[in-house]
Amino acid sequence: MAPPYRRHVFICTNRRPPDAPRQSCAASGSEAIRDAFKKALAKRGLNQEIRANASGCLEACECGPSVVVYPEAVWYGPVSLDDVETIVEEHLVGGRPVERLRMDFSKIRKPAEKPAESKLPTVR
Amino acid sequence: MAPPYRRHVFICTNRRPPDAPRQSCAASGSEAIRDAFKKALAKRGLNQEIRANASGCLEACECGPSVVVYPEAVWYGPVSLDDVETIVEEHLVGGRPVERLRMDFSKIRKPAEKPAESKLPTVR
Repeated sequence: MAPPYRRHVFICTNRRPPDAPRQSCAASGSEAIRDAFKKALAKRGLNQEIRANASGCLEACECGPSVVVYPEAVWYGPVSLDDVETIVEEHLVGGRPVERLRMDFSKIRKPAEKPAESKLPTVR
Repeated sequence: MAPPYRRHVFICTNRRPPDAPRQSCAASGSEAIRDAFKKALAKRGLNQEIRANASGCLEACECGPSVVVYPEAVWYGPVSLDDVETIVEEHLVGGRPVERLRMDFSKIRKPAEKPAESKLPTVR
C-alpha cells in the first residue's frame, strides 16, 4: 500500500479523560471502528487503493465517533461498528455516500464568539 | 472550528522505535511540523476553515515527514519545519500547490509481491 489513494478514510481516535466535559471518539469506541475499516478493506483486497487511517481530533466531538472520507469530503458520525460494512460496501466500493449516516453539522458545538472590540475611545 | 473544512491537512505523526528498520515521521520531527501548521493557520485566523490534523501512518515512510492536503490530494514529503510557511502561504492560502515539495512516490517501498500460486496439480 502506498499513496496516492483512490479514497482515504480518517477515523478520529482522540481520547479525552473520562471526566472531560466534551466526549471523545476513542472513549466512544473509535479504535475498534478504525480496526474494522482496515479489516473490511483488507478482506476485499482494497487496501492498496483505499486507506483507513487514525487521526487526531477532527473537532466534531458531539457527533463522534467521527469519520471523514476524502477526496469527496463526506463526513459520517456518530459511526457505530455495525455501520462500517455499510460505509465500505455502499460508499467506498459502490461510490454512493450513505445518506442516513452523514454527520449533522448543526449538532457540533461552535467555539464561543469572540467579544466585540470596544468602540470606546482610548483614554490617553 | 468545526467541519466541513475548506482544506484539511494531515501530518503523519507515527513513531517507530529507534531501532526499527523503517524510518517514521515522528522520529523525523513531524510533531513539531504539525504544531507549526496549527500555529501558522491560527496566526492568520484561518483555523476555522482550514484544519491541520495529526494522523497515523500514511504509508509513505521513505518520504517522511509526510503531509497530505485534501480535498485536492496533494502529497508533500519530506517536509521540514522551514517548509511549513511556504506550504501555508502558497498552497493553503494561495491555492497553488508547491511543486518543488511534492512527494516523489517512486521512492516509497512497495509491499513485496505475493508469490504466485503454484500451478502444479495437487497430489491426492
